[in-house]
Amino acid sequence: MVKMWPVLLCFLLVKSGVSDVFEDIVEERNRILHKELDMMLGADIILNDTEELANKIVMELKHKEVDFGFQNPQYFNYSKHFFDYKDEVKKSELFKIIRRMPKGAVLHAHDTGILSAEYVLNITYWDDLYVCFKSAGVQFLFAEDTPASPCETQWQVMKNARFSSGNVEKFDAELLKYFSIIIPNPLEVYTDVNTAWSKFQEYFIVTTALFSYKPVWEKYFYDTLKALREDNVMYFEVRSVLPHLYDLKGNHYDEIQTAGSYKDALDKFMMDYPDFYGAKLIYAPLRLVDAKTVNKYLKIAYELKKKYPDFVAGFDLVGQEDLGVPTKEVFKELVQARDKIDFFFHAGETNWCGTSSDENILDVILLGTKRIGHGFALIKHPVLMEEIKKRDIALEVNVVSNAVLKLVEDVRNHPLAAYIAQNLPVVLSSDDPGVWGADPLSHDFYVAFVGVASRHADLKLLKKLALNSLYYSTYPNKDKLVHEFEIRWTRFIHSVVDDHHKVIPSV
Amino acid sequence: MVKMWPVLLCFLLVKSGVSDVFEDIVEERNRILHKELDMMLGADIILNDTEELANKIVMELKHKEVDFGFQNPQYFNYSKHFFDYKDEVKKSELFKIIRRMPKGAVLHAHDTGILSAEYVLNITYWDDLYVCFKSAGVQFLFAEDTPASPCETQWQVMKNARFSSGNVEKFDAELLKYFSIIIPNPLEVYTDVNTAWSKFQEYFIVTTALFSYKPVWEKYFYDTLKALREDNVMYFEVRSVLPHLYDLKGNHYDEIQTAGSYKDALDKFMMDYPDFYGAKLIYAPLRLVDAKTVNKYLKIAYELKKKYPDFVAGFDLVGQEDLGVPTKEVFKELVQARDKIDFFFHAGETNWCGTSSDENILDVILLGTKRIGHGFALIKHPVLMEEIKKRDIALEVNVVSNAVLKLVEDVRNHPLAAYIAQNLPVVLSSDDPGVWGADPLSHDFYVAFVGVASRHADLKLLKKLALNSLYYSTYPNKDKLVHEFEIRWTRFIHSVVDDHHKVIPSV
Repeated sequence: MVKMWPVLLCFLLVKSGVSDVFEDIVEERNRILHKELDMMLGADIILNDTEELANKIVMELKHKEVDFGFQNPQYFNYSKHFFDYKDEVKKSELFKIIRRMPKGAVLHAHDTGILSAEYVLNITYWDDLYVCFKSAGVQFLFAEDTPASPCETQWQVMKNARFSSGNVEKFDAELLKYFSIIIPNPLEVYTDVNTAWSKFQEYFIVTTALFSYKPVWEKYFYDTLKALREDNVMYFEVRSVLPHLYDLKGNHYDEIQTAGSYKDALDKFMMDYPDFYGAKLIYAPLRLVDAKTVNKYLKIAYELKKKYPDFVAGFDLVGQEDLGVPTKEVFKELVQARDKIDFFFHAGETNWCGTSSDENILDVILLGTKRIGHGFALIKHPVLMEEIKKRDIALEVNVVSNAVLKLVEDVRNHPLAAYIAQNLPVVLSSDDPGVWGADPLSHDFYVAFVGVASRHADLKLLKKLALNSLYYSTYPNKDKLVHEFEIRWTRFIHSVVDDHHKVIPSV
Repeated sequence: MVKMWPVLLCFLLVKSGVSDVFEDIVEERNRILHKELDMMLGADIILNDTEELANKIVMELKHKEVDFGFQNPQYFNYSKHFFDYKDEVKKSELFKIIRRMPKGAVLHAHDTGILSAEYVLNITYWDDLYVCFKSAGVQFLFAEDTPASPCETQWQVMKNARFSSGNVEKFDAELLKYFSIIIPNPLEVYTDVNTAWSKFQEYFIVTTALFSYKPVWEKYFYDTLKALREDNVMYFEVRSVLPHLYDLKGNHYDEIQTAGSYKDALDKFMMDYPDFYGAKLIYAPLRLVDAKTVNKYLKIAYELKKKYPDFVAGFDLVGQEDLGVPTKEVFKELVQARDKIDFFFHAGETNWCGTSSDENILDVILLGTKRIGHGFALIKHPVLMEEIKKRDIALEVNVVSNAVLKLVEDVRNHPLAAYIAQNLPVVLSSDDPGVWGADPLSHDFYVAFVGVASRHADLKLLKKLALNSLYYSTYPNKDKLVHEFEIRWTRFIHSVVDDHHKVIPSV
């Protein structure tokens, strides 16, 4: 009898113990895995049968790309510098699908940073342009006659300068260097946030006189809307410093008139492309100023809102946050303004934890900002993450911008991965895509989807991100917008499935 | 009467409206800021008056360093490669204080990766060492006579090889390259996680025959304990693959005997330095194996535990997670073992979200792991973060290791910042500090404190991290350990205050 004990024990363990325990653990494993998936941004999207088919196609492509990188990290694109892969990824089938995908709205992009260097170069072929080559840099001005403003060397008619250079191709290649921050060795040159920002700001300085020529200003905006539309964006909220414009007659135009210029270009565009859903303006002057100047800005903002109530969405302050002025320094001025104008503040575009620029996130939340530009630093602030959720403040995340401007090197470490996992209200945007040679929105969607989000994140995330950009916009008639989006989405889904059928009829 | 309205309204707004509103917002700002500070890891530590004084000194130094970097990011050390700043920071006053600080225990470091390249070089000066130079690499063996094992060229007595080289300095400099992964241009050579890991593993391959010579094995461990003690660590849990050792007599020693060798070295050390609090062993063989081998490992683990119940803490599996084998593939084997041995698994040492290595975190939680090695990927898993908290599983965070082995470039983006903010159970450790030229623990504490944690994180965090390393250890008599820690801490605090008084008597 005694000898039977071990056998009996073993039987009991196998029959009702160990194997049950194992099953329980496997069950708990699945439960937790699904709990995470069910919590993820986009989990509330329900796909219909056709969408499920499209999802299968999208996920096959995504898994192929991710798994290849996982097994061969030396070839994984999105851990490298954006300049090294931006053109190559355009060959990806998944990229092509994302490009065709209706992506909703661009809610965070800056006036003159959206179109490519080549586009800017074309502007230098316009009539009446003068150029002044300096020991370091170049200066432009549109004028009827040689400009009176100082020039280190001498003002030349652009056309003459170009053709007397003897080598137009080389001449243009040299000019192109001023029209983006793309360089061959970014990791060596852009060693920190300041070196990248310094080159970035140089772009805006060099191009100011090009873009603030009134005819160019209007054409640039018109062509921006066109480029967005071609990238399957249906609506746009542009942030602008609203520079004073000029023309050949010696006229100068103030912020209100510059906004009017935008409005004119928009109206013209909407006549030509009535399938676009329009644009709104966020007045976003430079933040490196004192309280007095902020008050001046706010007065302009009120005036803008009064003059163009439907076109002007609100107010923001732009510029490198780490260099100051922290939002708290002009807190009083902004508190007083918050009932008169809506805020769409940049905040937390920093990786310095516990500094004044880090605390900007808290300040703009308290100021009642409708959305937050970037919010990169939010991940280090659990209480603020709760506030964001509670108050339903959207984060305008710009992954490529954050990588190029040196907040994060490997995009897999971008906090967006955690924001998606925690179902924070995220919209994807592109900041200044032209300055780093990105498409108006496709690169940002692609990198976020393949490089940042979980391998498990699927079409539901993509659709949610597009829908979020509409939901968190200030478009007055969102039902109509979403309805139209759904029509385009359905068309897109069918095209994905159809195209795939042509290649692999069995699926 | 009508004309009085605006004045009255204005009066009301100022008297009881706008200014009150502003005060309310400022109050809410303070409330939220403090809520975050009160939630931070270490917030439960209460500092006495002397500690407050020391804290003031520490924070003055920290703020000076952080603020200088904030204003001059081009000079901020911890955004650079570790090799570029590891020696320079030793000059920092704050680093010197952190070095003197009692740091508790090292709970995550690997057998032969702890001491410096120079230490390893010294081993090549031992008697009875033979060397074989290969076309790529070098091979060592301790032997009484010329080894019979194959050599691409020929086995030479090390002494002869060195002195016949004609230039001992150059000869040693060449050898040193094999004894660490430090190189002059790490950003160019270590382009991804695999290239860094490949060099890292080469170190272990080249040095295996050096370290597994029984007298060296024991001396290395003895000297490791000495180095830890000098870095103000009081207790150690070593992870070891437990290689088979050998001696000149042709004897070979298995895992159990290798553990015995550790035990002997420890006993000798404890005789010489009774103020140290000892060490325990986590048997941590290589993870790139099949289920059968894992079962073999587990049998060894049980045997080890039986033979050295007080010395052996538990079991782990080590090696680059992304290369597989995912924990789930040997899940059944490990589930069956979990009641017989304690687990201290590596998991989530990856930045691939949603992959098999990413899911290792979930698997080891379900396996009842006592602590998690790294947990780098945890930030992307909100549900798992809750589980970690609920089950009180400590994260053994190794910031410098994660930077050097290419998980994260700029340590400000290390998830530790968020773990601290969210009060997760964190202990700091150093993984393989010797391989990248770090101090046994000081560099990791320093980088975490200045480079990763919030600018607001102070002495409370440092003390909490040290206390956590004791609390989450397997030391049997923690009261005694903590009591002794407190004595040393008080001594340290007084020395910080006294030293500062000597320089600035007014504080």
